[in-house]
Amino acid sequence: MTIQSREQCEQLDREDALAHLKQEFALPEGVIYLDGNSLGARPKAAASRAAEVIQQEWGTDLITSWNKAGWFDLPSRLGNLLSPLIGAEANEVVVTDTTSGNLFKALAAALHMQAGDDQRKVIITERSNFPTDIYMAEGLTGWLQRGYRIHLIDSPEELSTAINAETAVVMLTHVNYRTGYLHDMQTVTALAHQHGALMLWDLAHSAGAVPVNLNAANADFAVGCTYKYLNGGPGSPAFIWVPARHQAKFRHPLSGWWGHASPFAMSPHFEHQPTIRAALCGTQPIVSLALVECGLEIFAKTDMQALRKKSLALTDLFIALVEQRCAGFGLELVTPRDHVQRGSQVSLHHPHAYALIQALIARGVVGDYREPGILRFGFTPLYVGFADVWDAAEHLRDLLASQSYDLNLKRNAVT
Amino acid sequence: MTIQSREQCEQLDREDALAHLKQEFALPEGVIYLDGNSLGARPKAAASRAAEVIQQEWGTDLITSWNKAGWFDLPSRLGNLLSPLIGAEANEVVVTDTTSGNLFKALAAALHMQAGDDQRKVIITERSNFPTDIYMAEGLTGWLQRGYRIHLIDSPEELSTAINAETAVVMLTHVNYRTGYLHDMQTVTALAHQHGALMLWDLAHSAGAVPVNLNAANADFAVGCTYKYLNGGPGSPAFIWVPARHQAKFRHPLSGWWGHASPFAMSPHFEHQPTIRAALCGTQPIVSLALVECGLEIFAKTDMQALRKKSLALTDLFIALVEQRCAGFGLELVTPRDHVQRGSQVSLHHPHAYALIQALIARGVVGDYREPGILRFGFTPLYVGFADVWDAAEHLRDLLASQSYDLNLKRNAVT
Repeated sequence: MTIQSREQCEQLDREDALAHLKQEFALPEGVIYLDGNSLGARPKAAASRAAEVIQQEWGTDLITSWNKAGWFDLPSRLGNLLSPLIGAEANEVVVTDTTSGNLFKALAAALHMQAGDDQRKVIITERSNFPTDIYMAEGLTGWLQRGYRIHLIDSPEELSTAINAETAVVMLTHVNYRTGYLHDMQTVTALAHQHGALMLWDLAHSAGAVPVNLNAANADFAVGCTYKYLNGGPGSPAFIWVPARHQAKFRHPLSGWWGHASPFAMSPHFEHQPTIRAALCGTQPIVSLALVECGLEIFAKTDMQALRKKSLALTDLFIALVEQRCAGFGLELVTPRDHVQRGSQVSLHHPHAYALIQALIARGVVGDYREPGILRFGFTPLYVGFADVWDAAEHLRDLLASQSYDLNLKRNAVT
Repeated sequence: MTIQSREQCEQLDREDALAHLKQEFALPEGVIYLDGNSLGARPKAAASRAAEVIQQEWGTDLITSWNKAGWFDLPSRLGNLLSPLIGAEANEVVVTDTTSGNLFKALAAALHMQAGDDQRKVIITERSNFPTDIYMAEGLTGWLQRGYRIHLIDSPEELSTAINAETAVVMLTHVNYRTGYLHDMQTVTALAHQHGALMLWDLAHSAGAVPVNLNAANADFAVGCTYKYLNGGPGSPAFIWVPARHQAKFRHPLSGWWGHASPFAMSPHFEHQPTIRAALCGTQPIVSLALVECGLEIFAKTDMQALRKKSLALTDLFIALVEQRCAGFGLELVTPRDHVQRGSQVSLHHPHAYALIQALIARGVVGDYREPGILRFGFTPLYVGFADVWDAAEHLRDLLASQSYDLNLKRNAVT
């Protein structure tokens, strides 16, 4: 169906079985929020949950809350709530620390598992990967000083030739933060395994955005973020997945007391515990951690198949509207057109991308800018509707047609 | 003055110039809270601050809050608020990650600075140190595989013979978590430097508890905790201090994007920044982080000298009351009697310590238990008064005299 009018979009919204989920979120009036891939919107429940943790659990119950309110167990409990979204089994995920920190642990563990083979010294990743993943790999391998090399490929097509008997680990972000390109998890994992390499996935732009089945793909390790599509709150702790089959041999250098086999025995030597809790290190930020549950509770009201169907309908619509109604203004589609290669975002290139994003934000259409020259729009089916997509595209068309954006505006240091 | 009655304690409370600060905290009625060395009490301001961050900054301002609300700068801003409490200069402290994680960074940086000297392979610490510090040192050195050894000493007196030309780093917790023993920072740091070693201090039980002057002592690195005496909230992010003179050479393996010289340039290679922000790694848990400010604001209403004076008066009083009124029941003082060796806690040994602590908690006197056989009481001058100390000692005496605690009670796995 070709969409020609806002009325048709409104009709799609009326027919949308997920439309009621928007009520779970506290979004400001008049804002079309297409930046849930950077910071997810606030679940309404987050305010009362924070008040409960702060007033009752911290203020009144004080130290007893480590047991009584389950604070100590929270990383595991949240991990188990998150598991179904990524195809993990129970007791394979904890929510803890940062994505960067968790990637360090997973990569270290993977290299440790490969240490018996002196020929396997190469970590393969993409130059276009989110930079912190590459930085953490540089940090780890630079310090180990054992001849590890990071091989940056420039296109997913290179994977089939790049992976070989020298590859220790293939470390990829499932959905690219900039382009929205979606890797085929099953195929790439199988390719890595075929050559004896281990497969580490960063799900920062996948968890809650696209269906993921880590165990079906037989992946080796995964990490990801809870503050984007999972709506856990600003900078909410990240997650790490270690499949049951690898837990006994999961070793990393961040061996803090929360990962100890008997954390409260206060023994002066570290003792590994063969569970997912070996991925824990220090004491967790409980208030931020507790809010992750509010986002996960909303996912429990639907499923990733339904969300994926709507996500593709939204991104299809946006691409179509941009191509039909914003043609001739220099926009280029960066995100793959093919569904099997597309995450839950649409990225467009334009020479004045930064100025355009600022002008859109001023009109209440919140997307973001990414270097170089990318307008990035995240489509979160939990709270974005079809009329929102129409309106966003119309604002973009109007800005381009009227040239009512600041041609001289340059990106400042921090945005 | 020998205290003989509760009335005398009430008089001390009336004369206490810090007594009004208790009003800044939301403590439950009828509770004498002597566990602020484990989890600080809740500042009243924390509830409204959390509501502001969640409702306005996250919910309404959304992604713009990274700049507009200063989220990105928060680790540095809080670090600067904390600096005066530990004798740090501006731009030498950030609040971020966990104490374990920060210790890993500081220890790695110290080993890196010593790497030019092949003879310096020993890290000296105490067997009685909080275990996670030893575990992180084990994690780091085990992975580096460059002949590093951890030398565990059994008493502070051993320091003078243990530190020598093979010592790379002396890594001590300033106030021992179990005994409350306080090291002389100036003397120990000078001893380490005399032998060419670097000095790393863990201030988990010092920051906000005793006066600390890192720069006056010429220390090299420090880390610490904000959720104990600083009242930042359960598991609130930790801090790390790197003095200006070491920032250009501060290198560690957790090189995430927040520590990059240009985090938003999205360059595929890590570039060190010669500032305290090189100690940052991944995206921080903003809600938990923001609450740290509520605790620090209370410290701005007083100073560490005044707090120390009251702290010593409280611990002196508790020791005196225990020795006068609980004599003959098998309690042994573990904490040093000498002021210059005492933190802000009193630890007592008793064969039934765990059962006694449980019975005290049931009466509203909240202390905690630490292995082996230690009753631990933290005295936080911000919200503990002299009559509280009297009442705590009376409850303890009454329990001992009446033997009204469960002689068979054993510690369970997680407390």
